Amino acid sequence: MLNQAPETVQRVSCIGAGPIGGGWAAHFLAQGYQVTSYLHDAAEYDALMRLLETAWVSLEAIGLAQGASMDKFSWTTDLAEATAQAEFIQESVPEVLPLKQGLYRTLGDIVDANVVIASSTSGLSMTDIQAECSTPERTVVAHPFNPPYLLPLVEMIGGEKTAAQTVKWSEQFYRCAGKTPLVMKKEIPGFIATRLQEAIWREALHMVANGEATVEQIDQAVVNGPGPRWALMGPCEIFHVGGGEGGMAYCLDQFGPALKLPWTRLVAPELTSELRNAMVDGCVEMTGGQDFASLSQKMNDGLVEIAKMKRKIKTQ
Amino acid sequence: MLNQAPETVQRVSCIGAGPIGGGWAAHFLAQGYQVTSYLHDAAEYDALMRLLETAWVSLEAIGLAQGASMDKFSWTTDLAEATAQAEFIQESVPEVLPLKQGLYRTLGDIVDANVVIASSTSGLSMTDIQAECSTPERTVVAHPFNPPYLLPLVEMIGGEKTAAQTVKWSEQFYRCAGKTPLVMKKEIPGFIATRLQEAIWREALHMVANGEATVEQIDQAVVNGPGPRWALMGPCEIFHVGGGEGGMAYCLDQFGPALKLPWTRLVAPELTSELRNAMVDGCVEMTGGQDFASLSQKMNDGLVEIAKMKRKIKTQ
Repeated sequence: MLNQAPETVQRVSCIGAGPIGGGWAAHFLAQGYQVTSYLHDAAEYDALMRLLETAWVSLEAIGLAQGASMDKFSWTTDLAEATAQAEFIQESVPEVLPLKQGLYRTLGDIVDANVVIASSTSGLSMTDIQAECSTPERTVVAHPFNPPYLLPLVEMIGGEKTAAQTVKWSEQFYRCAGKTPLVMKKEIPGFIATRLQEAIWREALHMVANGEATVEQIDQAVVNGPGPRWALMGPCEIFHVGGGEGGMAYCLDQFGPALKLPWTRLVAPELTSELRNAMVDGCVEMTGGQDFASLSQKMNDGLVEIAKMKRKIKTQ
Repeated sequence: MLNQAPETVQRVSCIGAGPIGGGWAAHFLAQGYQVTSYLHDAAEYDALMRLLETAWVSLEAIGLAQGASMDKFSWTTDLAEATAQAEFIQESVPEVLPLKQGLYRTLGDIVDANVVIASSTSGLSMTDIQAECSTPERTVVAHPFNPPYLLPLVEMIGGEKTAAQTVKWSEQFYRCAGKTPLVMKKEIPGFIATRLQEAIWREALHMVANGEATVEQIDQAVVNGPGPRWALMGPCEIFHVGGGEGGMAYCLDQFGPALKLPWTRLVAPELTSELRNAMVDGCVEMTGGQDFASLSQKMNDGLVEIAKMKRKIKTQ
C-alpha cells in the first residue's frame, strides 16, 4: 500500500467546505496542488468562494508556490467524482461521529486503498471514526489550526487500526505541502494545542464568572503581555529564557513552589525530580544547547518585529 | 497629595537592578526620562549595564522618544540618594515579603508623600507589602511582563490602604510613559496575565509528566498553532472571530458542551446564561461592534505579517 511517494502528489480532494475544509483547499491551492472540493450542498458554493478569495489575498501576500493558481480548483457535490482522481484526501465534515463513521465506510468502498484519508477532527478519535471503514489502515487524524492556510500546525495521530506507514507517509506529505506536522505520542482528548488553549479559555471564563476581570481586560492582558512571546516561543522555551543563565533548571528550582499557589484554578502535577529533569533536558535539547544570550537575543529580535508590525497595522 | 501632573514627571527611580528592575530602567530611559537605579550591591553593576546595552539595541530598533539618552542614567547603592529627586518610584526587589515590607517602611520615612511608589511584584499583594509603611496611600502594584521594555502590559491594583487617586494617577503616568496599564477589579493571586499563563504552564507540565507530549512538541504546538494569534488578539476575540458571523454567541452555544470534555485538567465553570451574556456582550463592546469580515481581515493581516517576519528572522 501507499506506493506513491508523498512528494509526487499533485491532486488533493477536500471533503467539506466550511471554514476548515475551505481553508485547507486554499492552502493546497497556494502550494500548487490541483484541488477538488466536495460540497455537501451546492448552496455552500458562494460562501466557499468568498472564503477562497479572502484567503487568496493573504496567500499572495505571503507568496504562492510555483504553479499555484485558483484555476486548479474544482468542486462537485458528487462524492465519487470528488475523490476519483485524488492522491490525498483531507476530510473536514462536521464533528458528528455517526456522520464521520458513515463517510469513512463509503470512502473505504470507493477510494483506492493506496490513498491516505486524513481527518481534520479536533475532538474525535480516529479509533472511533475508522470503526466502520473497510480500509482503516490508511486513515489518520491531521488536525489543523484555523485558518489552516496561515497557521502551519497539523497535529497527527492514528487510530488503533491505522498503519504506522500511513502516519509516516502523511507526516512527509504535510512537510512537502508546507505544513508543520506534529506526530503525537498518545491519543489524548483535544490533542496538545487545543488542551493548552482550552486551559487559558477555562481560566478566562472563571475570571469573568467571578467578576475578577472583564472580557476586554483578559484580551488586553494576553495581547500586551505573554501573547507576543507565544508567537515566537512556546511556554517551555520562554521559561528557559526567563531563567537567565540558569535556564529551565533555575526556573523550576526557584518557582517550583509557586505551583502550589492558587495562580489558576488548574491544579499542578507533583514536581517530581523525573518531571523536573524531563523539562530541563527537553529545553536543552530543543534549543540545541544555545546559551541565554543568543536565546534572549532571538526573543528580543522577534518582539521588536512584532512591535513594529503592530504599529504598522494600526496606522494602515 | 500627588500634586504633580503625571505628564510632567521627568525623574524616575528604579529600585532593584535584576531583569525586571533593569528592564524598567531601560524602558524609562528610552521614553526620555532621567533614571536613577538603586543597586543593592555595586557588584550588580556589570550585569545591569549588559542588560541596558542589550535592551538599547532593541529600543533603538523600535524607535526612541525625543530626548532619550543613556546619558540620563545614573546609579547608586545609597537608597536615600537614589530616591532624593524621584518624581516616581518603580520598585522591583526580590519577591520576599519581609524584604519588601521593610523597604516600604524605609521609603515611607524618606520619600515625600507626594511621590507614588509602584511595585513590580508578580505574586504578593499590596495590602501585605504596605503593612508597615507610614504612607501607604501612595503605594500601588504595577506588574510588568518580561522584558518590561518590549511588552507594554502593566497590571495595576492598590492595596486596602491605597488611595483611589494613586491608582488613577499612576494609570495616567504609565500611559504617558508608553505602557498599557490595566487596572484590575479585584486583588487576585497572579493577577490576570500570570493566571492565564500559569494555566497553560500547568497543563504542559501534566502532559510531560504523563508522557503525552515532549517539551519540544508543546512548544511547537503553541508556536505553530494558537501562538501567532495570541500576539494579535486575546482568547475572547479569537473565539468571537472563530464563531464566524454568529460571533461569540454562536461559539458558546455550539461549543459550550465541550466545556464538559476533558480537553484540559482545568475544570470549567458552569456556563450560566449570565456568564454566556457577559462573554457575548463583552466581545461586542470590546470590538466596537465590528463585523466578522473586518475582524477576520484584521486577524489575517496580522498573521501574514507574523509569517513574513518569522521567515525574515530565520533567514537572517
